[in-house]
Amino acid sequence: MATEDNQPTAEDTAHVGTERRAITFDTEPGRYRHWDLAIEAPVATLTMRVDPGAGLRDDYELKLNSYDLAVDIELYDAVQRLRFERPEVRTVVVTGGLDNVFCAGANIQMLATSTHGHKVNFCKFTNETRNAIEDATAHSGQTWIAAVNGTAAGGGYELALACDEIILVDDRSSSVSLPEVPLLGVLPGTGGLTRMVDKRFVRRDLADVFATRTEGVKGSQAVEWGLVDTVVPPSRFDDVVRERALARAAGSRRPEDATGISLDRLHVEIDADSMRYEWVTVTIDRAVGAAHITVRAPHGTPITTPDELVDAGPSAWVLAAARQLDDAMLRLRFNETAIGTWVLRATGDPADVLAAETVLRDHAEHWLVNEIRHYWTRTLKRLDLSARTLVALIEPGSCFAGLLAELALAADRSFMLDGEDPDDQLPPATLRLTEANDGWFPMSNGLSRLATRCWGRDDALHAVRDRLDKDLAAVEAAECGLVTFTPDDLDWDDEVRLALEERNSFSPDALTGMEANYRFAGPETMETKIFSRLSAWQNWIFQRPNAVGPDGALRRFGTGSRPSFDRARV
Amino acid sequence: MATEDNQPTAEDTAHVGTERRAITFDTEPGRYRHWDLAIEAPVATLTMRVDPGAGLRDDYELKLNSYDLAVDIELYDAVQRLRFERPEVRTVVVTGGLDNVFCAGANIQMLATSTHGHKVNFCKFTNETRNAIEDATAHSGQTWIAAVNGTAAGGGYELALACDEIILVDDRSSSVSLPEVPLLGVLPGTGGLTRMVDKRFVRRDLADVFATRTEGVKGSQAVEWGLVDTVVPPSRFDDVVRERALARAAGSRRPEDATGISLDRLHVEIDADSMRYEWVTVTIDRAVGAAHITVRAPHGTPITTPDELVDAGPSAWVLAAARQLDDAMLRLRFNETAIGTWVLRATGDPADVLAAETVLRDHAEHWLVNEIRHYWTRTLKRLDLSARTLVALIEPGSCFAGLLAELALAADRSFMLDGEDPDDQLPPATLRLTEANDGWFPMSNGLSRLATRCWGRDDALHAVRDRLDKDLAAVEAAECGLVTFTPDDLDWDDEVRLALEERNSFSPDALTGMEANYRFAGPETMETKIFSRLSAWQNWIFQRPNAVGPDGALRRFGTGSRPSFDRARV
Repeated sequence: MATEDNQPTAEDTAHVGTERRAITFDTEPGRYRHWDLAIEAPVATLTMRVDPGAGLRDDYELKLNSYDLAVDIELYDAVQRLRFERPEVRTVVVTGGLDNVFCAGANIQMLATSTHGHKVNFCKFTNETRNAIEDATAHSGQTWIAAVNGTAAGGGYELALACDEIILVDDRSSSVSLPEVPLLGVLPGTGGLTRMVDKRFVRRDLADVFATRTEGVKGSQAVEWGLVDTVVPPSRFDDVVRERALARAAGSRRPEDATGISLDRLHVEIDADSMRYEWVTVTIDRAVGAAHITVRAPHGTPITTPDELVDAGPSAWVLAAARQLDDAMLRLRFNETAIGTWVLRATGDPADVLAAETVLRDHAEHWLVNEIRHYWTRTLKRLDLSARTLVALIEPGSCFAGLLAELALAADRSFMLDGEDPDDQLPPATLRLTEANDGWFPMSNGLSRLATRCWGRDDALHAVRDRLDKDLAAVEAAECGLVTFTPDDLDWDDEVRLALEERNSFSPDALTGMEANYRFAGPETMETKIFSRLSAWQNWIFQRPNAVGPDGALRRFGTGSRPSFDRARV
Repeated sequence: MATEDNQPTAEDTAHVGTERRAITFDTEPGRYRHWDLAIEAPVATLTMRVDPGAGLRDDYELKLNSYDLAVDIELYDAVQRLRFERPEVRTVVVTGGLDNVFCAGANIQMLATSTHGHKVNFCKFTNETRNAIEDATAHSGQTWIAAVNGTAAGGGYELALACDEIILVDDRSSSVSLPEVPLLGVLPGTGGLTRMVDKRFVRRDLADVFATRTEGVKGSQAVEWGLVDTVVPPSRFDDVVRERALARAAGSRRPEDATGISLDRLHVEIDADSMRYEWVTVTIDRAVGAAHITVRAPHGTPITTPDELVDAGPSAWVLAAARQLDDAMLRLRFNETAIGTWVLRATGDPADVLAAETVLRDHAEHWLVNEIRHYWTRTLKRLDLSARTLVALIEPGSCFAGLLAELALAADRSFMLDGEDPDDQLPPATLRLTEANDGWFPMSNGLSRLATRCWGRDDALHAVRDRLDKDLAAVEAAECGLVTFTPDDLDWDDEVRLALEERNSFSPDALTGMEANYRFAGPETMETKIFSRLSAWQNWIFQRPNAVGPDGALRRFGTGSRPSFDRARV
């Protein structure tokens, strides 16, 4: 058994050649290989200077600020830390650290040689990180600005698109572009097409021209088309970026005089079939292709004031449990792809969970409370967006209450044990929804999991709302439509086992497609468009011989010979 | 050159073995092989009784009321004719004509042996027809009811889902089911998953259980879960269906005492590279992979009253042009898959187009006017949903006015000639938007093409609205953001040719994905979910070895051996 908290991440993620090594998400600014983080409050400047030799594998070089997952893991870390550790930062400027290049996008050699699954997983993670940037701007008073001081191509421009403002240097050569379609025969993989027409409101015909023009658009035309917000000559670039950063900072709701908390390194004990964090445990049952994910309730004296929360910092359960769940999901996604079912449990005293969430309810306006609530929102969204079957088991001794009841509402199906289990002394299973389940944590579709579950059936929603803050036994939970099955103790083990075995017998692709369509009823948002529409098309294209076949565009890129396409439109 | 209007369709669509024959959409009730249409006003009963040997190819048998494109072509014809030919029909009952089987869904052998492209095209067409059924219910006062008198599996149940009411026989054996995921490793292909949660508001966990349960759900449980509206014992089934049909008819807005018009057979002259209808001509330029589609303006005395419109029937330009464009698009989609660009032209006097649309404006409440307006809506949606690049050419002598200006607004990009062409005597190009462009023909996203084009830029929308009913020359059209490029006559030919050549050099898959994401900015609807999200996932799954590989579920179905899956979740 290895204890991971004293090994450098670089060893896990870089220079591993084609050997399959576990991917970890553990890093911090002092260990970044690809980014510099400089803070001069109220502005943080994040400078991309990718180390070509420090990618996740050693069979490609990350030239020209192109990126792979290793680069994006650091970016994700920076986004998180800025929110929690730096309350004094109100604007984040992201810029390039190479001459003439802001960012060249995802590394093409990496894309050309990666498995289909890795490409899809990589794109999903980069999309989640871009959304986290937008989330920081929208909900954290930390506005991201792209200072595009050189060419931004493909994913490089998509990184800028995730920022709230794009400033492009007007030096007669630096352009923004989305050359994936004409050069690579694939789509921009990080939400670019959606953000063109649904965020920046670029006219669709101009967006079409733009995304088929290899050389992109520069100068005043980029402003006219709505691709960037302003262009500035090199001589004034730094000044204008600083002016804009300070102007945006002036409008921020970030607190005065607050002290950040430090996100310590997550401690996790890992062996071949388990990961053990303080509050989250994952054990893998390979026979049925299931990972059992258990979140434990806190214990001890609850934190009730923001000051106690700041003092506790990363050791506060409401933050630590989210971090551990987030980390566990990311590891499972990348390192345990054949484990198709995640079984969700919550164990402990429901009263402890409810006590822990009071500070989130009573002090929502406090900056750290706000950060923690939004972090749970993002973490639960990551659960919704995971291409895994989610099954919740609500057993005696469980604590699916408030915050943790979201795990049951996120599940594709749930089992709740009806009655007592004579073999143990645990209290009967209950489900208890609170205000936390009625809007604190919107899904990607903008609705709570509860409202999505009741979509089109307002009477069902009202019936549940009448039962907030009440312990529901299995029968009542089923009557309210909150759980799927309620076996008694005689049937429990068989029913659960059969369900897991059956799920494991189905096509994992068909399950992924089905779940992606069922989970997001009701309205669509830019996020659901990116994950459910744009990504699905990209996944399709990523499979097609025109992209990945021996004569396809991704494989032929850089070889000097043109791709050979089957011209049939499908 | 063959003239098609005197050949039986069956020769074109059935019994052609593996030989590639052009698919046509020309049929009428007297020639149906798979459906019986019986009318006892106000109720029409459409009975599915598929001829197993009359599929589109002869290497599969359409057993148990399973269907292929040949069956659905007849269904599409019936949906159309009932609206135009039968104003007295207020309810359409669709039922099965075999013992114990309503419909077994798409034929699996057909799916297993069809090309990827055919599967995708087939699903798109069947989806459009299901949407047309919903459109008839919503907009035509012709409510569709499914009388499910036997088992409805997969696409069979999806056909019922497209109806406004589902009555299931309660005979202890007949069930509804979506067994695609567990049996075939693919998704239900005709909107089933979306309609589960977004139309019938089935709880997502029950929907999940349902779509993984091979045997489906029957009896009262089907009502409890929301899968059907009512169950009825066999002894009372026919009576209840009739009662419900009459009850729904009583609420219809269909006219009293109106006489339908007869949709005559479309006359089209076809040779290897062209299709010539009365008002629509298609010529194919294989060198650049483009089909040039020209719609001609009407001439002669315009129809201005509903009575004249009824008298003219199918010869009225406003109806004939839609039918011809619809037919041409369907033929191009299925028979010319390698022609990736559709170049849209409108020729003639704009005044004639504007005169023709006055009857659509002034008499919108008339049943036939209503039908024609909704038919244009569906036809223009079919254009939006075609996996082809759409380029509009607005040249001297063109008539992109009102109704026909929708073609320019539907295009991915447009060229408008600025100035006169000294070589001809034609009037300079103008673009003229009318009320027709401001809401008559919503796209699948529920917005007009104009509003979608101006999405997020209300000032641009208002600026265009201020210019309705005005002839816009190229410069003004460009200023209003209505056209993409405005070359003069010196540059026109080169610019257009280069654009078409360039488009033809790109990956057709990447273009399809890009266009699908750009065309539908703004809100999403059940239709956009079905076409852009559900279909994209299905396309992806249809490519995956887990479905179509030698050991995949589609290929292994019926062989007695289980599929072998790569278990990795992507």
